[in-house]
Amino acid sequence: MKTVTVLGSTGSVGTQTVELLAASPERYQVRALVGGRNATLLAEQARLLRAERAVICDPAAYPRLVEALAGSGIDTACGEAAVVEAAAMPADWTMAAITGAAGLQATLAAVRGGGAVALANKEALVCAGEVFLRAVRAHGATLLPVDSEHNAIFQSMADGNRPAVEKIVLTASGGPFRTASMDEMARALPEAALRHPIWSMGAKISIDSATMMNKGLELIEAARLFNLTSDEIGVLVHPQSVIHGLVYYRDGSVLAQLGSPDMRVPIAHTLAWPGRITTPAPRLDLAALARLEFAEPDIIRFPALRLAREALQAGGGAPTILSAANEVAVEAFLGRRIGFLDIAAVVEMVMDDMGTLPADSLEAVLDLDARARSGAARFCAQRGLSAA
Amino acid sequence: MKTVTVLGSTGSVGTQTVELLAASPERYQVRALVGGRNATLLAEQARLLRAERAVICDPAAYPRLVEALAGSGIDTACGEAAVVEAAAMPADWTMAAITGAAGLQATLAAVRGGGAVALANKEALVCAGEVFLRAVRAHGATLLPVDSEHNAIFQSMADGNRPAVEKIVLTASGGPFRTASMDEMARALPEAALRHPIWSMGAKISIDSATMMNKGLELIEAARLFNLTSDEIGVLVHPQSVIHGLVYYRDGSVLAQLGSPDMRVPIAHTLAWPGRITTPAPRLDLAALARLEFAEPDIIRFPALRLAREALQAGGGAPTILSAANEVAVEAFLGRRIGFLDIAAVVEMVMDDMGTLPADSLEAVLDLDARARSGAARFCAQRGLSAA
Repeated sequence: MKTVTVLGSTGSVGTQTVELLAASPERYQVRALVGGRNATLLAEQARLLRAERAVICDPAAYPRLVEALAGSGIDTACGEAAVVEAAAMPADWTMAAITGAAGLQATLAAVRGGGAVALANKEALVCAGEVFLRAVRAHGATLLPVDSEHNAIFQSMADGNRPAVEKIVLTASGGPFRTASMDEMARALPEAALRHPIWSMGAKISIDSATMMNKGLELIEAARLFNLTSDEIGVLVHPQSVIHGLVYYRDGSVLAQLGSPDMRVPIAHTLAWPGRITTPAPRLDLAALARLEFAEPDIIRFPALRLAREALQAGGGAPTILSAANEVAVEAFLGRRIGFLDIAAVVEMVMDDMGTLPADSLEAVLDLDARARSGAARFCAQRGLSAA
Repeated sequence: MKTVTVLGSTGSVGTQTVELLAASPERYQVRALVGGRNATLLAEQARLLRAERAVICDPAAYPRLVEALAGSGIDTACGEAAVVEAAAMPADWTMAAITGAAGLQATLAAVRGGGAVALANKEALVCAGEVFLRAVRAHGATLLPVDSEHNAIFQSMADGNRPAVEKIVLTASGGPFRTASMDEMARALPEAALRHPIWSMGAKISIDSATMMNKGLELIEAARLFNLTSDEIGVLVHPQSVIHGLVYYRDGSVLAQLGSPDMRVPIAHTLAWPGRITTPAPRLDLAALARLEFAEPDIIRFPALRLAREALQAGGGAPTILSAANEVAVEAFLGRRIGFLDIAAVVEMVMDDMGTLPADSLEAVLDLDARARSGAARFCAQRGLSAA
C-alpha cells in the first residue's frame, strides 16, 4: 500500500486524483485530503477514500465539514496552519495541487517529508524556484511534474540519458488568439479570451493561455525541473495539443509523449511512477485526427513568451516578479479595467521598474511578490485611465 | 573500449555504421568487418577502422582484398564459412546487416556469442523467428532493432514498463501508391513502384514498400521482437514518416520516437545503447514540416498487410512461406514477368497451396523457403502466361 495525501482535493486536478485513487482502493492508503472551501465535496471524498484526515483551508466552512464527517472516525481540521500540518504528515506520494502562495507553504512541507511530490502547483517552481529546489535537494524528495507538458518531458527522459539531451520542446495550443490580428487582440474582451480551444480550465489559466504567458511560466518551470537554460527549451505551437512535449537527443532521436487532452493521464503517471496504472482516459486515435500541425510561436503578438525568457535569463527574483505582476494584470483584464494587450505591457513595466533582485529566501520571495503586485496595480490603474 | 563487428559493412546500413565508428575511434575496437563482394571498399573500411579482420563473402573478390590490405597487418578471409567464423568472434556489439539466408547463419553465430546484436536483417526474425529467438534466449544475447520503426518502439519502451503496454503502432509512409487507384496499381511498371517518397533504398525493399509487404514483414518482426500478438500491433499510414513508431500505455500515455529519415539515428542508438552518442543526422524541425498526416491503411488496395497478419496468426512456417514467396514475386515483377498486383496474389496462392507447416529448426526453415520459392516461381509463370 502506498500512503498518499492530496493537497487541493476539491479542485480540478484534485477531483481527478480522487477518482483515480477511488478506482484502486487496495493500492492506496489516504493520509490526508486538503480542500479550499467546498466542505461538502471534501467530506464526500474523505468518506469515499476512507481518509485518515480531512482539512479545509477556509475556517468558515469548517462547521459543515465537521457535521458531514460526524461519526466517520475521520480527523478534521481547518486553517492554513492545519493545511501545512497535513502536508507535513509522512506520505509516499503527495499531490500538490493548491495554487497560489498558500500552496507554496504546503508544497514545501510535503517536500520536507522526502517522498514523491506530484507538482501541479506552478508557483513553487516559478516564484520560489531557488528556495523550493534547495528544499528538494536537502530532503531527497522526488518531483513528479503533473502539467501535461512537463509530464511529457519527464516521460520522454525515462531512458535515463539526461546528459544526452540537446534540448526539449514544449508544445502550446496557441490559445484562442492563435490566428488573431493585433487589432483583434487589442479589442478582445474577457469572453473571447476565455474560450480555450482544447482544455477547459479556470479563468486565470485560460487568460494565461490566451496571452501565452502560461507557456512562458511553463518555460521557467521546465528550466527549473530539468536544469536547462532558456536556449535549451523551445516552444512550438501545435493547435491539436496531441504531442505534449518532445525531448531531442544528441543522436538525432526525438522522444515524445502524446495523448488525448485528459489530465487523468499525467496524474496517473505520477501516482503510479515508476510503474503505470490503467485510466479510463480516451485513447489517442491519430487516424481519426488525420493531421497534426506545428508552427513557430509569434513573439510579436505574444510578448509574454519573450518576457518569460527574459525573466528566466535574468534569474533571481525576475520570475517571481513576472508571475505576480501577471496575476494582477490578468485580474484587471477580467475586471475590464485594462485591455488584453495591456496584460503583457503591465508585466513588462513592472519588470523594468523593479529590475533584478534576489529571491533566495521565502521572505524575499514574498516581499518581491507583494511589491510586484502593488506595482502592477499602479500600472493597471494608469493604463485603465488612459484607455477611458 | 567496446569490441564491435560489422556483418555487411559495405551495404547501406554497413557504410553508415562504419561512418559512426570512424567518428569515435577511441570508443570502439573493431574485431571484424564482413562484406559481400566490394573488396576495395571493404579494404578501405578495414584500414580506416584498424579492424583485426576483413572477410569477403565472394571468393572471386578475395585476391583484390588481399592485395589492398597487403602490409596492413589485417587478417583476411573469404567464403561463407569465413563469414560465419568472423560473426562468431566474441564482440560486445555486432551489426547484423547481411540480408538473405547467408545473413541468417552469420546472425545466429553472433547471437551465440551472447553479446548485443543490432538487427538490420529482417530474415532472422521473419523467416526463422522460432529458431532465432530460441538461440537468443539460450545464449542471453540482447537484440537491438535497427529498422527505424522497431528501433522507435524499443526506445519508446525504455521506461521498463513493458507489462503496461496496451499496443504498439508502426507507421508506414504508404509508399508511391498511397493515393493510387486499383487500376493505376494494376498497370504500374517497376519504374513507378521504385519511386519511394521518403527513403532511398534497394529495389527489393522499395517494391515491398509499394505493396506495403514491407510493413507486413515489420509487423511479424515486431510481434517476435516485443512478444506481441497481431491484435496488439497497429499500422498507421503517415506519409511524412517523422513519427517512426508509437507505444500505447494503459494509463493513456503514448510514447513515440520521431526523427528525420536518417538510418544513422537508429544505428547510433543501438551502437551506444544504453547510452547515446552524437550523430550528424539532421535535427527534426516540426515547424518547418508544418504538418503531419495520418490515415488507416487500405487493406483492399494493399492485401500484403492482410496476408502478413494471416501469416502471423497462423504461426509456424507461414511467415517463412510469405517472405520467400514474396521475394520471388518481387523479382518477377522487377523482371516484368508479372504485374504489380500479382505480387500479393502470388504470395496468397503459395500460402494457400502450402498451408500451415512447422518451422522449428533451421532445416525446416530452409526447406519451407525452397518449396515456397519454387511454388511462387510456378504461380508467377502462370500469371505471366495469362497476362501475355
